[in-house]
Amino acid sequence: MKNTLKFLSILFLSILMFSMKQDKPTKVIFFGDSITQAGIGPGGYITKMKEMLEKQGIKSKYQLIGAGIGGNKVYDLFLRIEDDVLAQNPDVVVIYIGVNDVWHKTSHGTGTDADKFTGFYNAIIKKLQSKGIKVICCTPAVIGERTDNSNAQDGDLNYYSGLIRTIASKYDCPLVDLRKEFISYNLKNNPQNKESGILTTDRVHLNDTGNQFVADLMMKAILK
Amino acid sequence: MKNTLKFLSILFLSILMFSMKQDKPTKVIFFGDSITQAGIGPGGYITKMKEMLEKQGIKSKYQLIGAGIGGNKVYDLFLRIEDDVLAQNPDVVVIYIGVNDVWHKTSHGTGTDADKFTGFYNAIIKKLQSKGIKVICCTPAVIGERTDNSNAQDGDLNYYSGLIRTIASKYDCPLVDLRKEFISYNLKNNPQNKESGILTTDRVHLNDTGNQFVADLMMKAILK
Amino acid sequence: MKNTLKFLSILFLSILMFSMKQDKPTKVIFFGDSITQAGIGPGGYITKMKEMLEKQGIKSKYQLIGAGIGGNKVYDLFLRIEDDVLAQNPDVVVIYIGVNDVWHKTSHGTGTDADKFTGFYNAIIKKLQSKGIKVICCTPAVIGERTDNSNAQDGDLNYYSGLIRTIASKYDCPLVDLRKEFISYNLKNNPQNKESGILTTDRVHLNDTGNQFVADLMMKAILK
Amino acid sequence: MKNTLKFLSILFLSILMFSMKQDKPTKVIFFGDSITQAGIGPGGYITKMKEMLEKQGIKSKYQLIGAGIGGNKVYDLFLRIEDDVLAQNPDVVVIYIGVNDVWHKTSHGTGTDADKFTGFYNAIIKKLQSKGIKVICCTPAVIGERTDNSNAQDGDLNYYSGLIRTIASKYDCPLVDLRKEFISYNLKNNPQNKESGILTTDRVHLNDTGNQFVADLMMKAILK
Repeated sequence: MKNTLKFLSILFLSILMFSMKQDKPTKVIFFGDSITQAGIGPGGYITKMKEMLEKQGIKSKYQLIGAGIGGNKVYDLFLRIEDDVLAQNPDVVVIYIGVNDVWHKTSHGTGTDADKFTGFYNAIIKKLQSKGIKVICCTPAVIGERTDNSNAQDGDLNYYSGLIRTIASKYDCPLVDLRKEFISYNLKNNPQNKESGILTTDRVHLNDTGNQFVADLMMKAILK
Repeated sequence: MKNTLKFLSILFLSILMFSMKQDKPTKVIFFGDSITQAGIGPGGYITKMKEMLEKQGIKSKYQLIGAGIGGNKVYDLFLRIEDDVLAQNPDVVVIYIGVNDVWHKTSHGTGTDADKFTGFYNAIIKKLQSKGIKVICCTPAVIGERTDNSNAQDGDLNYYSGLIRTIASKYDCPLVDLRKEFISYNLKNNPQNKESGILTTDRVHLNDTGNQFVADLMMKAILK
Repeated sequence: MKNTLKFLSILFLSILMFSMKQDKPTKVIFFGDSITQAGIGPGGYITKMKEMLEKQGIKSKYQLIGAGIGGNKVYDLFLRIEDDVLAQNPDVVVIYIGVNDVWHKTSHGTGTDADKFTGFYNAIIKKLQSKGIKVICCTPAVIGERTDNSNAQDGDLNYYSGLIRTIASKYDCPLVDLRKEFISYNLKNNPQNKESGILTTDRVHLNDTGNQFVADLMMKAILK
Repeated sequence: MKNTLKFLSILFLSILMFSMKQDKPTKVIFFGDSITQAGIGPGGYITKMKEMLEKQGIKSKYQLIGAGIGGNKVYDLFLRIEDDVLAQNPDVVVIYIGVNDVWHKTSHGTGTDADKFTGFYNAIIKKLQSKGIKVICCTPAVIGERTDNSNAQDGDLNYYSGLIRTIASKYDCPLVDLRKEFISYNLKNNPQNKESGILTTDRVHLNDTGNQFVADLMMKAILK
């Protein structure tokens, strides 16, 4: 009798814990710069993703958290990874960085050298993967939306995107290739070769179409 | 009798002047930076052009003069146009500038803003054309020979080349589109996506193949 | 009789011309950047100078003209010297340039190399002096008002100011040493080592005190 | 009897451990950039310090280790602190960084913003102090040896040196104020206002006098 009770108790607790675990949503942190900081605002790409999850009736399965800070470069992510990411025990981290590493070279004289970009990016992934966290990489989308390769930072953005593709492959991380996707989209939708206004407001930050475009691509990567 | 003599004299003088004019070679000045400075050295593109003219037996018809100074940007050409070009009364001036205007932005913090690049370029052409000098424009070839648009300055070089194309068209100047030609050549001849060694020694300055390549293109423009 | 008339006519004309010459004001052009562009606005340093001349009752003796354009560097002055200065036949030109030549190195990657700064500055003075125009040079005042030599561009501003002092001396031009005067003023009036707010609004552009300070120094140089 | 034996054993072990501790040298790591990388070479400042310790007969009391890598900025130190410093269990770490953080702004477009310089510097000190390691800070000496505050980076170097002084004070770290010491030395020993050749070979890296000068200052700080 006593044993039967004990058995039933354990069974009940196991079921409870299992169902609780089932209920625990997948925690996803978007780790990035001002684009991600705006992502949690009204109409931001993370906000849109939350709405999409709700519509699809799977809102409870995912917890989406924005950890974007304006002006951040790859080494800033490394500096704050403990406090802003690891402390929250995420299941998935989306690294969305690189625009300022390239852009600030001419705008502030404080961009990031390519070899150091790789070094810090690798270090971030290693730290996350060592905790069993799934890492998703993104290439930086655009600094200027001209489609004829004549935006001042196109060459450098392509180069740093190439570095990220290599890193993602090396560490077996899914890749959201925003650079490639934005260029494809603009080739179709920017016939006047405009600098901004297609997916961005100001050559860098996302307008509503851009936020939806990124939300769709991110969603695919996360649901995969 | 007197009239006949007068007539013959005039006829004779006319023939003499005509033949003198025939004998006077077309004076061509190559106005540029270190690439043109090296152009008059052994194996340089201007040296090669002289050899080509000799082989074709038309050496006496053209006087090729190099006026390149290392580190020059468009405004340096404007500053020295009187002394180094106009003082020599050329028939043709080939403007070959733009690499340092783009490159020095990150290497020295002293590149040239796009609007000012256009302003000085226009001013140079106006000054030359006002003296009846034929102007030939060139786009800047390369800063890095990678073929996947991932050389850091590719975007900016493309943009400044676009500015030059517009200017050349506006002022009705023949264009030697080195940027376009170098990219085409590299797409065929640089399968390993190397940074240099195809047409350049160091991503910018011409190797022997590069000097011959430029010499051929310049020759076509001048003989046209 | 005829001779007497002729003599009187000549005398009369001479007096007339002399008095006309007396009446013709000294035309002073201030040739510079955004600081000078703002100088002709309400409360600007040139506006203040005009008010000072009026108060002193010598308004008719000087015609003060602002020829400042925002973002200008030394080579921009050289490019527009014909249209904006020489076309107006000034008696005196005050060259007030240098802030952007230094500042834009890090803010835009398009500052001016020191040797080229000197080259263009010399060329401007030569062109003006060859027309008999009196040239007054100014050193660039400040980019940041901290008094402990810790404004990022202090070293470079000091260096370029040194270049201007040497040039002014070489071409025997009066010098308004704004750099030196601003530093002295701030050492007395900026005990809290503030970045701006003493003579500038934003580290560079003049507040009301700054405009008056510059007006006083310029006035001394012009009346001398 | 048993107790007496036990007592003697403990006494013996205590003496042994005490004498071992006495014998264990103080391990000092110099953590920096190319200046420190050269410091362990022939005539380098760390090499000189070792020789000085030997002459003073206290060679066995200190183990001096160079951990300098060319081109390093503050965030590079943070990235490699685990592997290159903490893994060696040092007693003292001398942080000697800052030249490239300032210099690379114009030479490569990849310097370090002031607020991020502070952020990483703080993080390094916290990490070291949390392990009980004594931290000694250094200000960056010079980029150019002119004595009239006209080296291009003087303002920025002064500013970053000020940041380090504040940090050192906040974390109660001894400070080797190389910036201040080099300026004092040059004011006395560089009457011709030369750019280099007094304490440096090339405006930045130490010549023999410079290495000795730094060795003397470092020695004082370590022996204190």
